[in-house]
Amino acid sequence: MYPKSIKNLIESFKYFPGIGEKTAERLAFSVLNMDKDEVESLSESIKSAKLNIKRCKMCNNLSENEICDICNDKTRNTDLLCLVEDPKTVFSIEKLGTYNGYYHVLNGLISSFNGINPEELRLDKLIERIEKNKFKEVIIAVKQCIEGEMTALYIKNILSDMNIKVSRIASGIPMGADMEYIDSLTLEKAFDNRKTIS
Amino acid sequence: MYPKSIKNLIESFKYFPGIGEKTAERLAFSVLNMDKDEVESLSESIKSAKLNIKRCKMCNNLSENEICDICNDKTRNTDLLCLVEDPKTVFSIEKLGTYNGYYHVLNGLISSFNGINPEELRLDKLIERIEKNKFKEVIIAVKQCIEGEMTALYIKNILSDMNIKVSRIASGIPMGADMEYIDSLTLEKAFDNRKTIS
Repeated sequence: MYPKSIKNLIESFKYFPGIGEKTAERLAFSVLNMDKDEVESLSESIKSAKLNIKRCKMCNNLSENEICDICNDKTRNTDLLCLVEDPKTVFSIEKLGTYNGYYHVLNGLISSFNGINPEELRLDKLIERIEKNKFKEVIIAVKQCIEGEMTALYIKNILSDMNIKVSRIASGIPMGADMEYIDSLTLEKAFDNRKTIS
Repeated sequence: MYPKSIKNLIESFKYFPGIGEKTAERLAFSVLNMDKDEVESLSESIKSAKLNIKRCKMCNNLSENEICDICNDKTRNTDLLCLVEDPKTVFSIEKLGTYNGYYHVLNGLISSFNGINPEELRLDKLIERIEKNKFKEVIIAVKQCIEGEMTALYIKNILSDMNIKVSRIASGIPMGADMEYIDSLTLEKAFDNRKTIS
């Protein structure tokens, strides 16, 4: 029904997770409405991002170079190492502008459900890095879920005979959220983790 | 903060209408997670759609050829011509599979607000086509809004001395919609256009 090139374009947009027929159609028609230059630039940046972005050899973060800008930044706090599940979290934390230690991207969480064993997180690389760089604190900043919990405990365990503090970012009710919409697990955690007001 | 290629990609996705920072980021990270082949094919289909798709010389619809498949289809009902605002509506109506006449894409609606004068819709081309092809009915299938109303009336007017029926698709409450969520203009229209149950 659609001319072939439009059909192909719609199909291509459907590669994106969470993009269905309707949205793909909308995106495809937007492409046809763009200037030729915009289309050229879109098409190029897609190819070039995939081509140029690799993983940092130190921390697994996305980078255009062998070692990413963060690992190369000598002005950062050399005591702190933050463990995250994926590169996107690195950028979320960086946006805050408050944390200035280093990162290590695990590339997943231990999950018996998804068949991800501890070996697949390459924790040997992590331990080696911690030993070499003499971090004083490892901050685990992964999702609050069973997999996150398991991963945090596992890492706490394997780091237990090293002289290093292992912490986990707090869980509780999010800022500004209406109490009535908080799920019960979150609320329970928030009670468990309550802090004395001094 | 992001490596340059990711930043460029995010900026490129923001060319799309309705795509903000967050969604652009999500799309960009999806690209990095795709196979190389998928990325190649996405990038290619974007360029090739823009390159290959032109307007049909007969009806203004999107097409890969001078004359689109619908205009070339001799099995269709030669009595009916459906006027639509944009090519997307053609595909929406075609999906129904019930209308089998021809189309004419106006490429806009008369609008004093957006400064679109009747001349810009190239209605001379439409009249010429109607005269040549001897359509018996023109069905106006444009949005229900002031601009749609003005356009429909204007076209009805200029076709008034030709021996042709001019109709407009019905307006009223959409199927399945809860009465309480219907806006008052729609409800008013639905009352005005009520049909006797026989």
